[in-house]
Amino acid sequence: MKKLDETEIIKKFQTALGNKQFVAEDVESFCIGNTQIIVKVDTLVESTDIPPQMSLKDAARKSIVASVSDFASKGVKPEFGIISVNLPSKISAKEVSEIALGVKSASKEFGLKILGGDTNQGKELVFHVCLFGSAKKIPKRKGAKPGDLIFASGPFGLTGAGLQILLKKIKAKDGFAKAAIKSVLRPSPRLKFGLKASSYFTSSMDSSDGLSATLNEMARQSKCKFVVENIPFKKGVEQFAKSYKKSFDSLVFHTGEEYEIVFTVPAKYKSKINSIAKTTKTPILEIGKVIKGTGVFVQKDKLVKLKDLGYHHFK
Amino acid sequence: MKKLDETEIIKKFQTALGNKQFVAEDVESFCIGNTQIIVKVDTLVESTDIPPQMSLKDAARKSIVASVSDFASKGVKPEFGIISVNLPSKISAKEVSEIALGVKSASKEFGLKILGGDTNQGKELVFHVCLFGSAKKIPKRKGAKPGDLIFASGPFGLTGAGLQILLKKIKAKDGFAKAAIKSVLRPSPRLKFGLKASSYFTSSMDSSDGLSATLNEMARQSKCKFVVENIPFKKGVEQFAKSYKKSFDSLVFHTGEEYEIVFTVPAKYKSKINSIAKTTKTPILEIGKVIKGTGVFVQKDKLVKLKDLGYHHFK
Repeated sequence: MKKLDETEIIKKFQTALGNKQFVAEDVESFCIGNTQIIVKVDTLVESTDIPPQMSLKDAARKSIVASVSDFASKGVKPEFGIISVNLPSKISAKEVSEIALGVKSASKEFGLKILGGDTNQGKELVFHVCLFGSAKKIPKRKGAKPGDLIFASGPFGLTGAGLQILLKKIKAKDGFAKAAIKSVLRPSPRLKFGLKASSYFTSSMDSSDGLSATLNEMARQSKCKFVVENIPFKKGVEQFAKSYKKSFDSLVFHTGEEYEIVFTVPAKYKSKINSIAKTTKTPILEIGKVIKGTGVFVQKDKLVKLKDLGYHHFK
Repeated sequence: MKKLDETEIIKKFQTALGNKQFVAEDVESFCIGNTQIIVKVDTLVESTDIPPQMSLKDAARKSIVASVSDFASKGVKPEFGIISVNLPSKISAKEVSEIALGVKSASKEFGLKILGGDTNQGKELVFHVCLFGSAKKIPKRKGAKPGDLIFASGPFGLTGAGLQILLKKIKAKDGFAKAAIKSVLRPSPRLKFGLKASSYFTSSMDSSDGLSATLNEMARQSKCKFVVENIPFKKGVEQFAKSYKKSFDSLVFHTGEEYEIVFTVPAKYKSKINSIAKTTKTPILEIGKVIKGTGVFVQKDKLVKLKDLGYHHFK
């Protein structure tokens, strides 16, 4: 039996469905009359996505955060949600209540109305979240133009460190460890910033598959070259990498689940973007520029190619 | 640890989300501007929903059929779909192709446009289907009035027999066994009939949780008494029950997955409904009447209460 990776699996579906022109996006959309409905469906699976230290409440919340972050990157307010849960048959009343509280907490936090859902019995806990909203126009992953500036809505590396601390039981400095663990257990998507800033984006994407995957996908779809001049890393990550002999690049570029928005804007909107960031208290970072060409490069002593080593299932 | 059944689990979610007025429906709906969007989310789980004899192609198709049937019962055309699949890591290229073909086959059969989806790694195969359409008004589970006639869009009992034949390896008569197995592996929802007839329904519900569950839910929500005068069973089911010492009532009333529409109409629309059934080649059956009172009863020598013993998860 030949084993497949995620890209090959998706290609098989596209071929069967005749979607040869298929372009991957953060959200799906369809029109009913003149209304464009925006939908995001995402799945959180116990065995692959939930660290053992994560409470059921936080797991339920995070299953919603993941889709909210996709809406944030496209500047769309998620208005309605449907939550389906596969529960192992041994689940207790207390555990179900914890999950329900996590859903409640997230719906309040993001102003979502939960329409309903269904519960199924399964071998492991699976959260399946559908969020809905509407928009006239959304920025795509493609659309970046030479001359545009590249921004990230926040720094990277903290979730990579957090996962190492949680899964490999590394003891890091208290303050840093706390922030790193929080970034894994209770991540915050940049919804407020996305809603206000998205009309200036020439391209955008949620970074949750990893910064390298995100930048490469945007550059590929935009048919431009992305040059990273300022690596957007969280203070303390470099020291953490050194102290525990972890790869700095892996932590910053290839971890995923940061739930930041990576976006490009024409240089003339720089001050506008900075002002929205200030109002919404978003720690945005200008990380580089778009130029003619292809691929993603990091400006070190010379330009170094940044490969897409982000998170992909089935690898 | 206290174990919960599905009703208790759903109640826990409703309490947490403050949906005290929550009314269960076949589909969810929300309005964006003046447009009412109809959504159905459904999950097919390998360990509980897929008999070992079912091909992956048929399993993928059936995951879509289940939601199409809910749309059919509400008279709404499903227009768009998003399919997410959890795949075990050992899945082969051939198996992925089979699944993709099942999705393709169903999308063609029901005129659905598949917008996209996602693939996740999981311990078992899980299909998660979201279908979308729109409607000005849909019939609800509540709404039946005394004097209405009760119909089913087709007979019951065949899937119950089919499951027994497949899972308990009973050898039944060739023709009957073939039809019974087909009803399990390749069920046909009544979409054409539902689309044409639903404007006459005072109440309706997809029967896939079982006829007894469906009738009880409709009677409960409508605050009326449902009396079944003609049990809607498929020819051969009575004989099958006798020959293999199976309960006729279990087969007909309490199995589920028949994907029939149970609906009520004012008596004056009887000929209209019969004419739509003829045009769409739907073997509808007038099964009883709605009267004042509560509960569901079957007219035998006397009225016998029909309990809700349909399919519920976690039981």
